[in-house]
Amino acid sequence: MPEAKAVPLRAADEQAQLQRAVSRFKPEIEAELRRVLAEADAEPALRGFYGQMAYHLGWVDAELRPSPVVSGKLLRPALVLWSCALAAQSAGVDDATQQARHHQALPAAAAVELVHNFSLIHDDIEDRDRLRHGRPALWTIWGEAHAINTGDGMFSLARLALWESVARGFPAKQAVQLGKLLDHTCLRLCEGQFRDMAAEAGDDVTPADYLDMIARKTAALMRAATAIGGTIGAPEKPKIAATLADFGEALGIAFQMRDDLLGIWAASTELGKSHAGDLRRKKMTLPIIHALAHAPEADRARLRAIYRADREPDDDEIAFMLDLLDRTSRAWCREQLAAQCDAARKALDRVTHDLVNHKRLPLQTSEHGENAAEALGALVAYIALATQG
Amino acid sequence: MPEAKAVPLRAADEQAQLQRAVSRFKPEIEAELRRVLAEADAEPALRGFYGQMAYHLGWVDAELRPSPVVSGKLLRPALVLWSCALAAQSAGVDDATQQARHHQALPAAAAVELVHNFSLIHDDIEDRDRLRHGRPALWTIWGEAHAINTGDGMFSLARLALWESVARGFPAKQAVQLGKLLDHTCLRLCEGQFRDMAAEAGDDVTPADYLDMIARKTAALMRAATAIGGTIGAPEKPKIAATLADFGEALGIAFQMRDDLLGIWAASTELGKSHAGDLRRKKMTLPIIHALAHAPEADRARLRAIYRADREPDDDEIAFMLDLLDRTSRAWCREQLAAQCDAARKALDRVTHDLVNHKRLPLQTSEHGENAAEALGALVAYIALATQG
Repeated sequence: MPEAKAVPLRAADEQAQLQRAVSRFKPEIEAELRRVLAEADAEPALRGFYGQMAYHLGWVDAELRPSPVVSGKLLRPALVLWSCALAAQSAGVDDATQQARHHQALPAAAAVELVHNFSLIHDDIEDRDRLRHGRPALWTIWGEAHAINTGDGMFSLARLALWESVARGFPAKQAVQLGKLLDHTCLRLCEGQFRDMAAEAGDDVTPADYLDMIARKTAALMRAATAIGGTIGAPEKPKIAATLADFGEALGIAFQMRDDLLGIWAASTELGKSHAGDLRRKKMTLPIIHALAHAPEADRARLRAIYRADREPDDDEIAFMLDLLDRTSRAWCREQLAAQCDAARKALDRVTHDLVNHKRLPLQTSEHGENAAEALGALVAYIALATQG
Repeated sequence: MPEAKAVPLRAADEQAQLQRAVSRFKPEIEAELRRVLAEADAEPALRGFYGQMAYHLGWVDAELRPSPVVSGKLLRPALVLWSCALAAQSAGVDDATQQARHHQALPAAAAVELVHNFSLIHDDIEDRDRLRHGRPALWTIWGEAHAINTGDGMFSLARLALWESVARGFPAKQAVQLGKLLDHTCLRLCEGQFRDMAAEAGDDVTPADYLDMIARKTAALMRAATAIGGTIGAPEKPKIAATLADFGEALGIAFQMRDDLLGIWAASTELGKSHAGDLRRKKMTLPIIHALAHAPEADRARLRAIYRADREPDDDEIAFMLDLLDRTSRAWCREQLAAQCDAARKALDRVTHDLVNHKRLPLQTSEHGENAAEALGALVAYIALATQG
């Protein structure tokens, strides 16, 4: 079997900058998530219910004993808070107002993270995935019935969290808009999951179908994160939030495309991805879907047969697929990813340019000691690394 | 086996009055539900997703062909609309304002019905119930994965529906309160389902535990229905909505208690209930839980053994249980039900008395040709029939 060319990630500076950007708000976000759960979790008889949520969020073990925290990256709530900071800066409000809006954005950030996690709890049941963040998925411990119900509870709690922004002074009129946006986003997540499950059952998925699916399943919530953050950061300037929404959507699609590229061409040590892992598991990702639509007919027939067979592909078949995808899909997928990164960068530029008195915003260091535009830019740069190599 | 004494339902006038009360708004509610779904269901690729919702709501068959409508009673949305009408009358607003508020309440009524139905879709999976309204449950046709996801979609759609009230002029500030109330209610539903599932797994359920469980699982949504209707009907007088909330909660608990009584003492022809049906299925309902806590020790031991056995009870065991429950639980359960009906009636009286200029409201016929207080009173009277016989 030929060696796959690994995507050379971890250009050390990009990696470090991203790490700083994403981890900046982590303690605040975790504290906010714990506050939301603690407020609801008031009765001993319901300990098991909220305990399941705490388990899924990585705070306790399966016996509900406190354990070393195994949380996700908290990328989506970080997007809410960075977008809030950037929007407030772009709107030119003073430091005290920025700080007040950051405080209002925290419950919204928790809401977005809880929506993400509710959908993971249910997706794991639906997809029969037994592992989540390296630990047994909730349903494998408490059973499907509880996992469905606990997911529903987390979904309810997510939206309940949002209203705390109003208690912290965010205007009701815009809060209704945010509620509507979040609800609409949740519907889009379900639509995306439906299309994903329907695609697995059938064969005729086109690249356009797939892009529509990931726009709903992955990009919609990132779009919501940046739109919500932008709205709370600058409720008086809805154009900023609209532009940040475009940024979030492009970022979300790029994020999934990067995942799809690494699912085939990552070295085995990269980020939990194994070399050709998506091919071994016969996942329907962008490179495969593109090849099924555009490779020479004989290759498509063989690829289709491998994917339809009732067993894992063998080494020869993996080698054939890697070679085929190298020839037909890799460059195209990278172009698609580059285009999304470009769209994200342009949206970010529109927020930082020309918004305050048509002048470039100074790349000022906020009181947090970091610049929101730089943090969001670092995220795009990191994702764009997967276009190289 | 001794004949069970059937509860003599259908005192003809109560039945007819209730029928009128509940069916009054049915066409409007159905039209509103169809509007909500039609607005979301805009893409051919998502036809299967929204088609599952339409199937569950009883509008199409499993092949998504239009079918004779098999909808539920639409009791909860009717509660929203009657509560809205009563609150508006109690607040003394003019006919045009009443009509405008009714129009604002329609999407909220749809929201409550969709929350109810989302929870039925998920409960059916969790409880392995294969039938819903006499038709195959959604999960038995499309599988669990789709049923979980479609339920989540309906949950999202429910809350999205609520915001249409704002588009129809309901103030954003109170809409945020309604959003919060609905979200909190959904969390209570999940908590109730958790307690229900936890109770099935254990033995030591006390009557107090059980009442706490049904307060969450059944009464919370009825409470929300009357509170939401009351708030939209009289946003300027929050006391009316608060009293209607008390009414809805008592009604909801009474509703479940009646169900529990009929599950054991209904004649087989009553409302889909079969004589001693809950005993045959070994359901943990109020009469059983009361007997397990209060019957003589020997009887409790036998009852516990029958419920723990790995088979259906035989005729002798059914006869033993019926006799035991007659002796120990029936009168007590009826008293509990009577007390809840009484609480509901008193709350209703508080809304109709003394609210406008401290005078009794005239039992005026509204432009709908029916009186909201009478309709809600008829509902209580109907439920209270189960205390007799």
